[in-house]
Amino acid sequence: MQALVYTNTQTLVYREEKNPKVVNGESIVRVAASGICGSDMHAYHGKDNRRIPPLILGHEISGTIDKGKFAGKKVILNPLITCGKCDYCTNEKEHLCNKRIILGMNKPIERQGGFAEYVSIPDNNIYELPASLGMKEAPIAEPTAVALHAVELGEKELSKSLKNTKALIIGGGAIGLLSGLILSKVKDCGEIVIVDPNKKRLGECSKYLNAQGVEPGSKIILNDYFDIVFDTVGLETTRHQAINSIKPGGVIIHIGLTQPSGSFNFRKVTLQEITFIGTYCYTNKDFEKTLNILANKKIGSLNWIEYKNLKDGASAFQQIHDGSCSAPK
Amino acid sequence: MQALVYTNTQTLVYREEKNPKVVNGESIVRVAASGICGSDMHAYHGKDNRRIPPLILGHEISGTIDKGKFAGKKVILNPLITCGKCDYCTNEKEHLCNKRIILGMNKPIERQGGFAEYVSIPDNNIYELPASLGMKEAPIAEPTAVALHAVELGEKELSKSLKNTKALIIGGGAIGLLSGLILSKVKDCGEIVIVDPNKKRLGECSKYLNAQGVEPGSKIILNDYFDIVFDTVGLETTRHQAINSIKPGGVIIHIGLTQPSGSFNFRKVTLQEITFIGTYCYTNKDFEKTLNILANKKIGSLNWIEYKNLKDGASAFQQIHDGSCSAPK
Repeated sequence: MQALVYTNTQTLVYREEKNPKVVNGESIVRVAASGICGSDMHAYHGKDNRRIPPLILGHEISGTIDKGKFAGKKVILNPLITCGKCDYCTNEKEHLCNKRIILGMNKPIERQGGFAEYVSIPDNNIYELPASLGMKEAPIAEPTAVALHAVELGEKELSKSLKNTKALIIGGGAIGLLSGLILSKVKDCGEIVIVDPNKKRLGECSKYLNAQGVEPGSKIILNDYFDIVFDTVGLETTRHQAINSIKPGGVIIHIGLTQPSGSFNFRKVTLQEITFIGTYCYTNKDFEKTLNILANKKIGSLNWIEYKNLKDGASAFQQIHDGSCSAPK
Repeated sequence: MQALVYTNTQTLVYREEKNPKVVNGESIVRVAASGICGSDMHAYHGKDNRRIPPLILGHEISGTIDKGKFAGKKVILNPLITCGKCDYCTNEKEHLCNKRIILGMNKPIERQGGFAEYVSIPDNNIYELPASLGMKEAPIAEPTAVALHAVELGEKELSKSLKNTKALIIGGGAIGLLSGLILSKVKDCGEIVIVDPNKKRLGECSKYLNAQGVEPGSKIILNDYFDIVFDTVGLETTRHQAINSIKPGGVIIHIGLTQPSGSFNFRKVTLQEITFIGTYCYTNKDFEKTLNILANKKIGSLNWIEYKNLKDGASAFQQIHDGSCSAPK
């Protein structure tokens, strides 16, 4: 098969690779569309110790079952593969399973990803494509599930309804925009500010999201003001912005993985009783709920998704890297 | 009146001071006993910008009403003075009130503390001493309320009962021991490990608390093991121990204020969906609940409290500072 292979830092090669083998309990999917995630970009920059070249990246995938018990069905893949037996898996926290694997990752266990003609996936991870959802836009289910999970973690934590809540979203990429769309269109959040240093990105977000888009230095971002802050970037500086802008008793939801460590104002966390929650992926229930949200067009138009042919994948990564691509996905 | 005055870094002087003035809505209390808090020690080391010398420290106070509508009554003081009108105060989160003041603090507003013969306090902050509680041990109510609030924040956050929970307590001082006693005797917590570098302190804790007491390097403290970690110290290194030892999906309760900033493993917070909650003081309800716990002897013997005369206060601070005092309070 043809595949886009991550061969070295900032290097992707479109080349012939071996087809995935048929495995018991799994299916082979002919990939229709595959999205580029921030974590793929992180790998591309040589900064993800779970994704070591050579590797086929990509875990936001739609396609048609080629070989397997649902052969011929149009499907969306949940790329998070878990053991199904541990305490986490049996208590609806599959995303915390110690044995979890994601497609397009090779540490600790190799699973080739979706930037290829074919990919293998356990049958339990296959969801039928809702009739109202296009095959090309369907991979957005995966980051939407990430955003839904993050928003609902925050919602559960807040002592008041999201309707009466002031939310700050740091980062206008896919997760930032999707978190905003869920807050706005699904949760009816009262006030949303989205912050990004890239004006083009803010412009894109403003077309689809009812939120105030500002740059990081903006005076709109008051200190001690927001009930909830979503840091979809995860830099030391964005965490500083999060802790400065959160109000006493507020909730910071931390999604981004850009900078693994760094300083932080633990004094404010303590004196103002801030709740700081890391959030990763989604549960199986979140994934199903997301498909329902997308099938019912609850987050509105998905026209902000840009498409490229797989053979042009290297330039797509390059354009995201150099900022010339403003599309959130 | 005589008072122990914090006059300079590591300097306390027992001297004559003006008596507090009678103010409308407040009472004057003749102090019976006053406890030394970790935050008083922090001030003593010149590291608390809310407590600038000269100042009478101390906010863990019992006494008898000298002047006021309850004159003659034996009382315990809730030293956290709040506006009573804001969103926080009217929603049982008085401890987050923007106008909160604590006795023995002078920034932003001065309130002289309890290391004196007399102290002034709003009537709303006065609680009658339960008959079964001795006047000398009563000041323990304040740090016990801090510990109860912290434990119950964690309990609310955990997805399972504290009975089935493995807890790590970092720090064997008063808040560490009290958190342990509440976990063990009030909440019936399944497994408790308490860690402190001071063997004398661990020895004291082991007399009263059913927990495994270990030093920081101990192999007992496994990585990714504890459901909940209480950091009662708040150093960069104790936070590192907290994040290393917490299991996926676990809860870190951060109480200590020793080191305001420092690095942290935000990657684990995110990938393992850790909840990190700062906790400060207590609500009025927590304070009342604490008096009930103490009145009913639910946390057992309070023999671990050591007493000194006020005029010997300077040496008491000195002994805590140099580690020669092993009593948790």
